[in-house]
Amino acid sequence: METNVYDVTDWKVPGRPIDPRNDIGAVINSIIADIKRRQTDPADKPGAVIYIPPGTYSLKTRVVVDISFLTIRGSGHGFTSLSIRYNSDTTGWHELNPGGSHIRVENTDGHAEAFLVARDGSPRLSAIAFENFALDGVSFGANQNSYRNGKVGIRFGSDNDSVRVRGMGMVYLEQALVIQGPDALDVSGNFIAECGTCVMIVGGSQASRVADNHLGAGPVGFSIFAENSNGLLITGNNVFPRGIDSVHLKNCFRSNVSANRLQSFYPGSITLEGNCKENLISSNMFERVAESYGPFLGVSNGLGDDFGVVQINGDGNTITANHVTYVIAPDQVTPVGATPAVFRIRSGDQNVVGGNHTITNLTVHTVVLDAGTTNSHVYDSGTEAQLLAQSASYGFRPTP
Amino acid sequence: METNVYDVTDWKVPGRPIDPRNDIGAVINSIIADIKRRQTDPADKPGAVIYIPPGTYSLKTRVVVDISFLTIRGSGHGFTSLSIRYNSDTTGWHELNPGGSHIRVENTDGHAEAFLVARDGSPRLSAIAFENFALDGVSFGANQNSYRNGKVGIRFGSDNDSVRVRGMGMVYLEQALVIQGPDALDVSGNFIAECGTCVMIVGGSQASRVADNHLGAGPVGFSIFAENSNGLLITGNNVFPRGIDSVHLKNCFRSNVSANRLQSFYPGSITLEGNCKENLISSNMFERVAESYGPFLGVSNGLGDDFGVVQINGDGNTITANHVTYVIAPDQVTPVGATPAVFRIRSGDQNVVGGNHTITNLTVHTVVLDAGTTNSHVYDSGTEAQLLAQSASYGFRPTP
Amino acid sequence: METNVYDVTDWKVPGRPIDPRNDIGAVINSIIADIKRRQTDPADKPGAVIYIPPGTYSLKTRVVVDISFLTIRGSGHGFTSLSIRYNSDTTGWHELNPGGSHIRVENTDGHAEAFLVARDGSPRLSAIAFENFALDGVSFGANQNSYRNGKVGIRFGSDNDSVRVRGMGMVYLEQALVIQGPDALDVSGNFIAECGTCVMIVGGSQASRVADNHLGAGPVGFSIFAENSNGLLITGNNVFPRGIDSVHLKNCFRSNVSANRLQSFYPGSITLEGNCKENLISSNMFERVAESYGPFLGVSNGLGDDFGVVQINGDGNTITANHVTYVIAPDQVTPVGATPAVFRIRSGDQNVVGGNHTITNLTVHTVVLDAGTTNSHVYDSGTEAQLLAQSASYGFRPTP
Repeated sequence: METNVYDVTDWKVPGRPIDPRNDIGAVINSIIADIKRRQTDPADKPGAVIYIPPGTYSLKTRVVVDISFLTIRGSGHGFTSLSIRYNSDTTGWHELNPGGSHIRVENTDGHAEAFLVARDGSPRLSAIAFENFALDGVSFGANQNSYRNGKVGIRFGSDNDSVRVRGMGMVYLEQALVIQGPDALDVSGNFIAECGTCVMIVGGSQASRVADNHLGAGPVGFSIFAENSNGLLITGNNVFPRGIDSVHLKNCFRSNVSANRLQSFYPGSITLEGNCKENLISSNMFERVAESYGPFLGVSNGLGDDFGVVQINGDGNTITANHVTYVIAPDQVTPVGATPAVFRIRSGDQNVVGGNHTITNLTVHTVVLDAGTTNSHVYDSGTEAQLLAQSASYGFRPTP
Repeated sequence: METNVYDVTDWKVPGRPIDPRNDIGAVINSIIADIKRRQTDPADKPGAVIYIPPGTYSLKTRVVVDISFLTIRGSGHGFTSLSIRYNSDTTGWHELNPGGSHIRVENTDGHAEAFLVARDGSPRLSAIAFENFALDGVSFGANQNSYRNGKVGIRFGSDNDSVRVRGMGMVYLEQALVIQGPDALDVSGNFIAECGTCVMIVGGSQASRVADNHLGAGPVGFSIFAENSNGLLITGNNVFPRGIDSVHLKNCFRSNVSANRLQSFYPGSITLEGNCKENLISSNMFERVAESYGPFLGVSNGLGDDFGVVQINGDGNTITANHVTYVIAPDQVTPVGATPAVFRIRSGDQNVVGGNHTITNLTVHTVVLDAGTTNSHVYDSGTEAQLLAQSASYGFRPTP
Repeated sequence: METNVYDVTDWKVPGRPIDPRNDIGAVINSIIADIKRRQTDPADKPGAVIYIPPGTYSLKTRVVVDISFLTIRGSGHGFTSLSIRYNSDTTGWHELNPGGSHIRVENTDGHAEAFLVARDGSPRLSAIAFENFALDGVSFGANQNSYRNGKVGIRFGSDNDSVRVRGMGMVYLEQALVIQGPDALDVSGNFIAECGTCVMIVGGSQASRVADNHLGAGPVGFSIFAENSNGLLITGNNVFPRGIDSVHLKNCFRSNVSANRLQSFYPGSITLEGNCKENLISSNMFERVAESYGPFLGVSNGLGDDFGVVQINGDGNTITANHVTYVIAPDQVTPVGATPAVFRIRSGDQNVVGGNHTITNLTVHTVVLDAGTTNSHVYDSGTEAQLLAQSASYGFRPTP
C-alpha cells in the first residue's frame, strides 16, 4: 500500500531537485503538497510522518502546515548553548553548533517563521506533532546577547486541537514557540533556552499543558507567557533565567502552576497581569538571585524589587505551599531604599497567600497588599513585621 | 540476523493475504503468532515492535497480546473531536475523522475489545507498550451523545508489570483503557477523551502512575477510576468534563492526587468511595462550572450539589493546598434549596482538610463533616459559617 | 546523502565481523568511530542515532561515548523483575529474562560500565540521549539479593548539558545511572528497579529534572542520590522500596521534591545530609511500612526509627503539604524503646515544617527539633504531645 512515511533525505521534489541540506523548508512543503495530492477524501485523511534524520539542514523557505495529523519528527533535540559559545574563546572546541536533527533557521523568503501551522475553515487543525528535532536561530546579529533577530521557530497561527510539541530543542530564536488558540495542547519535555520568548500562548487556550520542560528565556521576553487562557496546567518545568518573567499570565483563569522550579535574576518571577482570576500557584521553588554571568551583568527587566517575586492582579487567586529564596546583595536592590516584596497583591478581591516560606538576606515584605485590595487572606507566610498592608480589608496570621 | 521489527503494511499473513486496512487485528495476531513461533526459548524472548504507519485501518478481529515485551507503536495519536463533528453541520469540512496511525474499532468477531492483553501462568506479562496511535470507536450509535457502544480500546485482562500506555489517542469508546492488576504501570501523555470511561484500574494496583494525560470522559463514566490500589500516583493531568467523576477511587490506599487540573460540570469531581485510607489530594485546581454545550444541557450525573466537589469516605485522608472554583447559577443548584458542599467527609476517622481556598458565587459549605465522622481536622479552608459539622468530633480553625 | 542513522544489526564492523548478539558494545564503539571519522568539521557535527531493535544482546566491551548529539535508542525498555525470578521456582515460566531491546551487561574488558559518556576539553558534551532499551546486570552473584556486582549501567564521567535518559529499563545493576556534573539534565519516564542505586548525581548539577520515573533501589543504595546540586526538580516519581533512602540529597540547594509517591521499608525516606539549604519537600505521599517479602525479612538500613521519615540537616528548608503513613508493628521499632520520628530537624536554622499530616499506629514524634536547631517553625503537623523539642528556639502551633 502507499506509504505515509516520508524521510526528508529520500524525498525527490518533483520538477526541481532540492537538497534538504540547502532548504529543508522547501522539501517539507513539497512533501505536504504530496500528502494533500494523495489524501483528498475528507473521510480518510490520516496525515503522515515526516522524518528528519540527524544532520545539518538549512531552512530558507517557511514550512506551512495546513493539514491535520502531521507528525514532524527527528532523532535528536540537539540543544547546545550558543550563548556560552558566543561569549567564549572557542579555539580548540570539539564542536561549535547544535546538532541532532538540526535545522538552521535562515529564511530567505521574507517570513519570520520556520514553521507556520494555520488553516482556514473547519474543523480546527488537530493532532499535529513536532518531536525531537532542533530549531536553531543561528545568531542574534551584531549583539549576540540581544535576543533579537525576528525569528520564530513554530507559530500556530489558527486555532487547534490536541497538538503536541515534545522533546524539541530550540535556541537563539526571538520567539521559539507561539501558539494561537490551542485546545488540549501538550508542550512537554522540550529544551527551549536562550530564546527571546520560549512558549507563548495567544488568543486564549483551554485544557492545555506546558509541562516537564527545560526553559530559559532572554531578558527581552518570557519563559512562559499565556493570555486569556482557562485551565492551563503548568507543572514539572525547570525554568532558569533570564526571562522578564518565568511565568507571565495575562487575563488567565483557573490555571494551575504547581511543582515547578523557577529561577530568576529579576523581580517578577511569576506575574498575573490584568484580570487574572482564581489561579493556583503552589509547591513551587522560587530562587531569586543575582546575575553572575559577565555579559549580562547590569542587564535588568526594568522592574524594582518592590514589584514582587510574585505579583498578583485579579481576584480569587491562591498562593500556597511555595518556597522562596531571595538572596541578592543589599546594594543591588532597586530602586535604592526600596523594600523588596515577595508576594505582592497589586489588585483584587479574595486572594490567599498561605503557607509559604521565604528565606532571604534582606529586610523584605513577604506580603504586600496594595491599596484597594479587598478580603485578602494572609497566613503562615512570614511575620507581622514582614506584612505591608496598604488596605485594611484582610485577614492575617503570622507564621508561628 | 532475524528481525524483531514488524510493519503492519509489510506483513504477509501466511496462507491468506489480509490487507491491514481491512483488518489490522488479524494482521497483528498473525505477527504475534510469528513472534511466538520464532521465540520459543524461555531464556531468550525479547519480544518485538510492531509498527503502524500513519493510515486508516479497520480492526475487525480482536488482537490478543499474550507475550511480554511487545511494543505496538504508531506515528500519530490522531485525536480529533467526534463529539463536535456529530453535533455540527460538517458541510465543507476539511476532514471528518481521526487520523495519524488510525484504527477504527469495528469488531465483527463478537468481542468488545480492540486489544486484549492477557496470559495465564507465570510470570505476569511484563513491559508491554502501546504508543502513539489512535483507537477510534467510530460511533455511539443512534444517540451519538450516549457514550454507549460496548467498545473497549485496550483491556489488560491479567496481572501485569511495568507496562506502558503512552502518547495514545482514544475517542468514542465506551471504555478506552481497562487495566487489571498492574504493578508499576505507566499511563502517560495520552489524549483520551469523548469516551465513556477513560482510564479504569480494576483488581488492585501497586506503584502505578496515571500522569501527564489529557482526559475527559462522558457523563456515563469516569475520567480516572481505580479500585483496591495502593500507592497510585495521579499527577500532571488536565481532566476536562464530562465524567461522573474526574477521579474516582474505591477502596484505595495511599494514593497521591497532586498537581492536576480538574474541571467538572457535575458534583463529585473527586470521590473516595468505600474504605479509602490515607490518600493525599493536594495542589489541584478544581473548576466546577455548568454545562454550556447544547447537546448536553440538562444532562447530569444524578448527584446533588451537597455531594461535595470532593467527597471522602474512609480514614486518614489529607486534602490540602487545593483551589476550588465553584461557580454555577444559583437556580442550577440541586436539589432545590440544598447548600452546595465543597469538601465533604462522609465517613471516617482522622481526615484532614487544611489550607484550601474556595471561590464561589453561592452560599456553600466549604467543609461538611457527616454524622459519625471522628477526629476530623479542618483548618484554613473557609469561615466557621461555611462549616457544617454533624459530628462533634473535630478540630476547626477558620481561614484568617 | 550520507546517513546518520545506524542499526546495530546492520552495521559491519570494518576488518572484523562482530555479531551484536555477542558484543553490542564493540559494535556501538565501531559505529561511534565511524561517526567521528565522517564528522570532522567542528561547525557541522550533528551526531547520529544508533538504533537497537528488539533482541537479546550481550555487551562485553564498554561503550565510550565521546561525541555530542548521539542518541542511542531501542524499541522496548524490557523491564521484568529478576528479584521475583531468583526467589521463585520458575518451572514452567513463559519467560525468564528481561526483553525488549535487551542488553546483558557482561563486560569482559575489566570495566564496570556498560556505557561511559566522557570527553575532555570544551564544550561539555551536549544533547546525548539514551532511550527505550534495557540494561540488565544479569546476576548479583552468589547472593542474588546482595545488590552487589560492581556493574554500572551508564556513567556520565564528565560535565554535560541537556542530556536525556528517557524510557529506559534497568535491572540488577549495582549502579544503574551515575551522572557527573549535569546541566539541564532530563531523567524521565524510566523503569529503574532492583538496582543497588538507581539515579546518582555526583559533582553537582544545575537546573536538572529527575521526574516521572518508576524507581526502587536495593537496601545497599539509594533510589535517588544527588550532591552539590542546585535547583534539582524531583517530581512525579513513584519510588518503591528498598533503598536506604528514596531521596538522599547531600549539600544540595533549592531543590524541589514535590508530588512524588515514596514508599519505604526503612527509616529515612528523604534525607537532607550535610549542609542542605532551602529545599522544598511538598505534596508527597510517604508510606513507611514493614518489609513483607521473605528474602528481605530482617534486612535493614541500620537506621533507628528515631532517625525520621524525613531528616533535615541544614538551613531554610520547607516541608509542607505532605502526607505520611507510618504503620509498622510496635515490636519492629528500633532501637527498642525508641519513639519513632516523622520529621526530624537534626540541625539548622529557619526550617519550616507546616501543614503535614501523619497517620500512624504508633506513638510518634511527628516533629523532632534537635539541640542546636534554631528558629524552626512548626505548625499544623501534629499535636503538642507529638513535638519533641530539644531546642527552645522555635515557633509551634498544633493542628486544630
